[in-house]
Amino acid sequence: MWNRLATNRATRLERAAQLVSGKVVKADAITALLEAVIEPGDRLCIEGNNQKQANFLAKALANVNPQVVHDLHIVQSVLALPDHLDVFEKGVASKLDFSFSGPQAARLARLLSAGQLRIGAIHTYLELFGRYFTDLTPRVSLICAQMADRAGNLYTGGNTEDTPVIVEATAFRQGIVIAQVNEIVDVLPRVDIPTDWVDFVVQSPKPHYIEPLFTRDPAQISEIQVLMAMMAIKGIYAEYGVTRLNHGIGFDTAAIELILPTYAESLGLKGKIATHWALNPHPALIPAIEAGFVESVHSFGSELGMEDYIRARSDVFFTGRDGSMRSNRAMSQTAGLYACDMFIGSTLQIDLEGNSSTATLGRIAGFGGAPNMGSDARGRRHGSRAWLKAGKEASTGGIPRGRKLVVQMVETFREHMAPAFVEKLDAWQLAESAGLDLPPVMIYGDDVTHVLTEEGIANLLLCRTPEEREQAIRGVAGYTTVGLGRDKRMVENLRDRGIIKRPADLGVDVSLASRDLLAAKSMKDLVHASGGLYRPPARFRNW
Amino acid sequence: MWNRLATNRATRLERAAQLVSGKVVKADAITALLEAVIEPGDRLCIEGNNQKQANFLAKALANVNPQVVHDLHIVQSVLALPDHLDVFEKGVASKLDFSFSGPQAARLARLLSAGQLRIGAIHTYLELFGRYFTDLTPRVSLICAQMADRAGNLYTGGNTEDTPVIVEATAFRQGIVIAQVNEIVDVLPRVDIPTDWVDFVVQSPKPHYIEPLFTRDPAQISEIQVLMAMMAIKGIYAEYGVTRLNHGIGFDTAAIELILPTYAESLGLKGKIATHWALNPHPALIPAIEAGFVESVHSFGSELGMEDYIRARSDVFFTGRDGSMRSNRAMSQTAGLYACDMFIGSTLQIDLEGNSSTATLGRIAGFGGAPNMGSDARGRRHGSRAWLKAGKEASTGGIPRGRKLVVQMVETFREHMAPAFVEKLDAWQLAESAGLDLPPVMIYGDDVTHVLTEEGIANLLLCRTPEEREQAIRGVAGYTTVGLGRDKRMVENLRDRGIIKRPADLGVDVSLASRDLLAAKSMKDLVHASGGLYRPPARFRNW
Repeated sequence: MWNRLATNRATRLERAAQLVSGKVVKADAITALLEAVIEPGDRLCIEGNNQKQANFLAKALANVNPQVVHDLHIVQSVLALPDHLDVFEKGVASKLDFSFSGPQAARLARLLSAGQLRIGAIHTYLELFGRYFTDLTPRVSLICAQMADRAGNLYTGGNTEDTPVIVEATAFRQGIVIAQVNEIVDVLPRVDIPTDWVDFVVQSPKPHYIEPLFTRDPAQISEIQVLMAMMAIKGIYAEYGVTRLNHGIGFDTAAIELILPTYAESLGLKGKIATHWALNPHPALIPAIEAGFVESVHSFGSELGMEDYIRARSDVFFTGRDGSMRSNRAMSQTAGLYACDMFIGSTLQIDLEGNSSTATLGRIAGFGGAPNMGSDARGRRHGSRAWLKAGKEASTGGIPRGRKLVVQMVETFREHMAPAFVEKLDAWQLAESAGLDLPPVMIYGDDVTHVLTEEGIANLLLCRTPEEREQAIRGVAGYTTVGLGRDKRMVENLRDRGIIKRPADLGVDVSLASRDLLAAKSMKDLVHASGGLYRPPARFRNW
Repeated sequence: MWNRLATNRATRLERAAQLVSGKVVKADAITALLEAVIEPGDRLCIEGNNQKQANFLAKALANVNPQVVHDLHIVQSVLALPDHLDVFEKGVASKLDFSFSGPQAARLARLLSAGQLRIGAIHTYLELFGRYFTDLTPRVSLICAQMADRAGNLYTGGNTEDTPVIVEATAFRQGIVIAQVNEIVDVLPRVDIPTDWVDFVVQSPKPHYIEPLFTRDPAQISEIQVLMAMMAIKGIYAEYGVTRLNHGIGFDTAAIELILPTYAESLGLKGKIATHWALNPHPALIPAIEAGFVESVHSFGSELGMEDYIRARSDVFFTGRDGSMRSNRAMSQTAGLYACDMFIGSTLQIDLEGNSSTATLGRIAGFGGAPNMGSDARGRRHGSRAWLKAGKEASTGGIPRGRKLVVQMVETFREHMAPAFVEKLDAWQLAESAGLDLPPVMIYGDDVTHVLTEEGIANLLLCRTPEEREQAIRGVAGYTTVGLGRDKRMVENLRDRGIIKRPADLGVDVSLASRDLLAAKSMKDLVHASGGLYRPPARFRNW
């Protein structure tokens, strides 16, 4: 027997045929359909990606009879909705492999310690996608699209995200693909997923859930963040000539985006830095785009409210012939890994080796794309000014090579005066309490090239011993215990050698570090900068 | 002006509309069409992937008038056909970014030194794909599919390879996509690329060229290779419990595939090693599949003659609902990078640091997928027995982590008694003569975990100093100058510590290392093992 999967698929479809005819399924038949096509022990993927959520199907799955459907092994990139965990509580699912669980991280930890689920592993997105084609191929996938036509072709529109990868892995290994769509129409704006790859389509009673995850209100950016952004631009972007890059989520990097058309422009850097991006369509990037800083942006997913702006800026964004954006997380993560010279992002904790983690006790959150984007791509072979310079700085002899810039940007104290620098990451304790194979590190210290705080920049590439590295980190760790524990003479020596740079060493005038440098100071300013094309979601409309 | 790309695209299509009507173009109109839609200086991708070639379009491009179309920047993964270089000789193209140029490597070097082209960079496949979404997006792509329907939907069939990536990057950045197909039909077996992403389709006078690149005749496998294969299985596959893996191309790894059902079976390893593969459908894997060793194979591309076998083994291969294989180089490279625990392959030269290269003087060949598959994925976060054990062996303190196994497998002397071990790679001289940024290294020494020769296995993970590493390499380098230069006492010490293992240390009985262990000894045996389903191309039919 060499076609057990295909035969089993046919059996499932026969059971479904007793309930529904054709590919288009009525919403009220969905739970019965799931019970017909899913078998106990199946690997199942609910499209819960970064922003777009197959939430109607997620709820339907949480409502199946656990006597019929049980012991599922869930393989999905993001757990964002209560339903994603309800399936474990109800006994429908028992094992989980995933990438990110931000809003559900605490509940996930509780369910784990209560023995209601087992965790296979936490992955970076591209890693989980790789396993979809190896040992974690889904048997059934519940996905999400904008529209379907009556034949079952799908239009994913701006928020394509993970859909192509999930469907390809499932459909081409004799699995079952069920799509929830917001609308069923006669003619699609464009076909994104051919009907040959799709088994069932259901119009959900309400449009799918989507989260504006990458929107940051400029009003909340502090002057410290402006100062750090100035140091980043002068000390890293300009210093290395960084043209291709990814920004992590958050106010620190939003500040950088917002001073490109002011501070970076004043330094004559337009066209010389930050031209090509692997980035979601951050509203904070609008002023830089309008100022002509940005040549291209390829996105993992879209951002609510940016649709019309993107449509009107097709020279910058990847768009389809219908004008809507084409995002694709797998391709954008590939670009972030191999085509970008720099990843810069924030973290919660950094230890003395430069290992960083956002894992804290009682929360099992995962890291999404950061481990991929924030790692040196050792398979990379093409040169660029930034990559070659970083490689040269790191060299201690041997065969010459390049190096990705990986910058961790943190204020020395975060909310509630929790220090960003610690002797030992919480990740160690979390690994023990959750029974993980290894402490969940977001970015390993030997991949981090620079640590940037309000106190200055530590260039770890130039450090030659673990002691120098530790002192370079202590030397920018401010008034944290780690910072206070510095060897002052050694830190001054590192500063003399250009390994630590203070604002003054960089020629950054601290007195200019005010919110006046922000090209937009509020959501309203962003709307204005976009010529009225950006339409922020209601919760951000505070004027 | 924020839609220059879209406007320019419309202008090109208008010029085309004066020559052709609709999407389906006659073969004799193709050169005129190319002259109408391509503009000087365009970035252009000819689908020259590993096996499948858009050879009709490549020839048509070589025939355009260089007064009309010139200074193209070619961005394509593989240069395999003379036409791919003719465009440079004729002045149609002037710059090149690529991944692999095997058969054209010597001519490429000549053209470069004659100043007839400039090389941007040499990439690993996934890296070039990443740049398609960043700074090397093609303006026009000439691609290759099996069939089209009259609406312009494409069926790529078993050899999908790079097509989805090329089309997605081009179509969604207002570029032009032209497909050559073998047939135009009313109804496709399945839709692989929606017509919304395609501009023109042309039926080529002859089916596209395709090369059976991964077929190795078992008759040419030597007893030394059987011995090395036995060491690999006992000393690495079994030792680490390697289940998910990629094999490089060549007789060394074909020998491993062919002794899985004999030697590995006799060691009780069925189901314990080599279950999940990122691999083209190697005919040499047939006996292992038939013996039940293999759970799944995801492929970069297909292999000529394997079509019926794949169709009949849909439990193992990724196949569409029409029964043909779904390959996808980007996804398989992603699986190779992030989901595989081991890459094992051959090389031409290894230096004293373990850096390996297939670059030789006068040939600019590139490395295809090896730099990606043969690098430690530092963004990986999921554990497995093999990965955790390798990480533990490499650890010298600090935060614990895993490690990919990267095995270089070479006989100490290759053809014409050229030593595989050298003091300095030819890559250094090539970099100088070709003006490359860096010496073209295939796999960097610090990513290599094991070097395997007929003399034994050197486990570089366990080496603690550069000196130990050098002696471990010398210790398996046989009678090469490098091997003869070993410090005998230090090598014996490394052997005592299990860093170097000879066949006897591994419990491998050298007297059993005969061709009798090969589950198939000839192409005919492979056909027999497949139950007559495998149909080798004519050149391999030697019975």
